[in-house]
Amino acid sequence: MSGSTTDSAQASRGGRPRDPTRDGVIRAAVLHLLAAVGYGALTMDAVASQAGVGKATIYRRWRTKQDLVIDIIAELNQAEIIPPDTGSLRSDLRDLLHALVALINGPAGAAILSLLSTVPHDPTLAEAFRGGPLDGWQHAFEHVWAHAAQRGEVPPGLAGTVLAEAASSLLVQRWLLTGQPVDDAYADAVLAAVLLPLLTSIPSR
Amino acid sequence: MSGSTTDSAQASRGGRPRDPTRDGVIRAAVLHLLAAVGYGALTMDAVASQAGVGKATIYRRWRTKQDLVIDIIAELNQAEIIPPDTGSLRSDLRDLLHALVALINGPAGAAILSLLSTVPHDPTLAEAFRGGPLDGWQHAFEHVWAHAAQRGEVPPGLAGTVLAEAASSLLVQRWLLTGQPVDDAYADAVLAAVLLPLLTSIPSR
Repeated sequence: MSGSTTDSAQASRGGRPRDPTRDGVIRAAVLHLLAAVGYGALTMDAVASQAGVGKATIYRRWRTKQDLVIDIIAELNQAEIIPPDTGSLRSDLRDLLHALVALINGPAGAAILSLLSTVPHDPTLAEAFRGGPLDGWQHAFEHVWAHAAQRGEVPPGLAGTVLAEAASSLLVQRWLLTGQPVDDAYADAVLAAVLLPLLTSIPSR
Repeated sequence: MSGSTTDSAQASRGGRPRDPTRDGVIRAAVLHLLAAVGYGALTMDAVASQAGVGKATIYRRWRTKQDLVIDIIAELNQAEIIPPDTGSLRSDLRDLLHALVALINGPAGAAILSLLSTVPHDPTLAEAFRGGPLDGWQHAFEHVWAHAAQRGEVPPGLAGTVLAEAASSLLVQRWLLTGQPVDDAYADAVLAAVLLPLLTSIPSR
C-alpha cells in the first residue's frame, strides 16, 4: 500500500513523511463510508470523524474527496493479491475464487460497488479503478493460467482469453447484478459446474 | 409497459387516464438523464425539460424522483424480452445473448449501470430492479432451457442452475466491471468458447 505519487508530492512540498498507521486508518474510514453512504454522500468531514484524525491531516494530503478516493482505489488490493501456486490449476483457481469471495464480502467489495455508477462519469476514477484492483486481479489470474501451461496442464495462451474470463464472471454477476449470496460454497459450485467441465473440454497439447 | 399500480392510483384520484405517448417520452427522458448525469444528479426539473412536458404533468403522477425512477425501472424490459424459440438451444442462447448486447449498449443498459451503486442503499429500488428487468431476463433464460429439455437436447432441471448462470455472466462482467466492449462478436465468442463446450460436457439423458 505505498502511494508513490502522493509520497513524492508530499516530499516536494517539504511536508512530514507519511504515517503508514494513519494511512491505514484513513483508508479503512473511506472504505467504510463508501459502503455505508455511497460516493455521492461521502464528505471529508465524515472521513476525518470516522478516522479520528483532524481535517487538516486529510486536506494536507488530498485537496478533494475525489483525490482521496482515487488514491485509495488505485492502491486497493495492490499488495494483497498474491497469486496462489499450489501446483495444480484446479486448486489455484479454487484459492483465487475464495480470495475473490473474501473481497466481495469485505469492505473493498462494498466500496467498489458503491463507486461503479460513478466510474462511467469520471475518467480519473475509471483509470484508478482499472489500473488498481482490476489490474491486480487480472495479473493473478494470468499468473495461474501461465503456470498451468508451464506444467503442461493446459495449452499455452489461455490467459486473457474468453474462456479465462469465465473464471470470475459468475461471482461478479451475483455480486454486482443480482445481489445473490457469493460464498465459498458458491465458488466451489462454479468450479465444479463450469470451470472443471471447461478445462476437461480443452484439448491437451 | 403498463403500470397498473400507478393507473389505479391515478383512477382513485379521479385524474385523467394516462397518455401512453407522453409516458414513453418521460421514460426516454429519465433513461437518458440517468445515463448522462447519474441518479444522484437527476432532478424532476431536468426530466420535465428533457421530456418537453410541464413539471405539473410529472408531479401529478410521481411525488418524488425516487417514485418516478422506481416506476420506470420496474417496467423496464417487461414487454420487450420475448424469449426466442428457434428450435435449438444453441440459436436460442445466441438470440438471447444478442438481445442482452443490445440492452447493455442502449439507454436501459446505461441507466441500470447508473443505478447499481444506489441499489444496496435503497430497498424499494432494489425490489423494483429485481422484480423488473432482472426477473424478465431470468424468465427468458429459464424458458429457453426448459424448451431445450422438452426437445431432449439437455436433461431437465438445468434452468436456474450454476451452469445456466454462466450464459449471461461473461457479458455482465464486461458491462459492469471491466468496461470492455460487449458486442455481438463477443457474445458469439462466449457461445463458442464457453457455452457450447459446457453443453457438450452435459451427459445427455
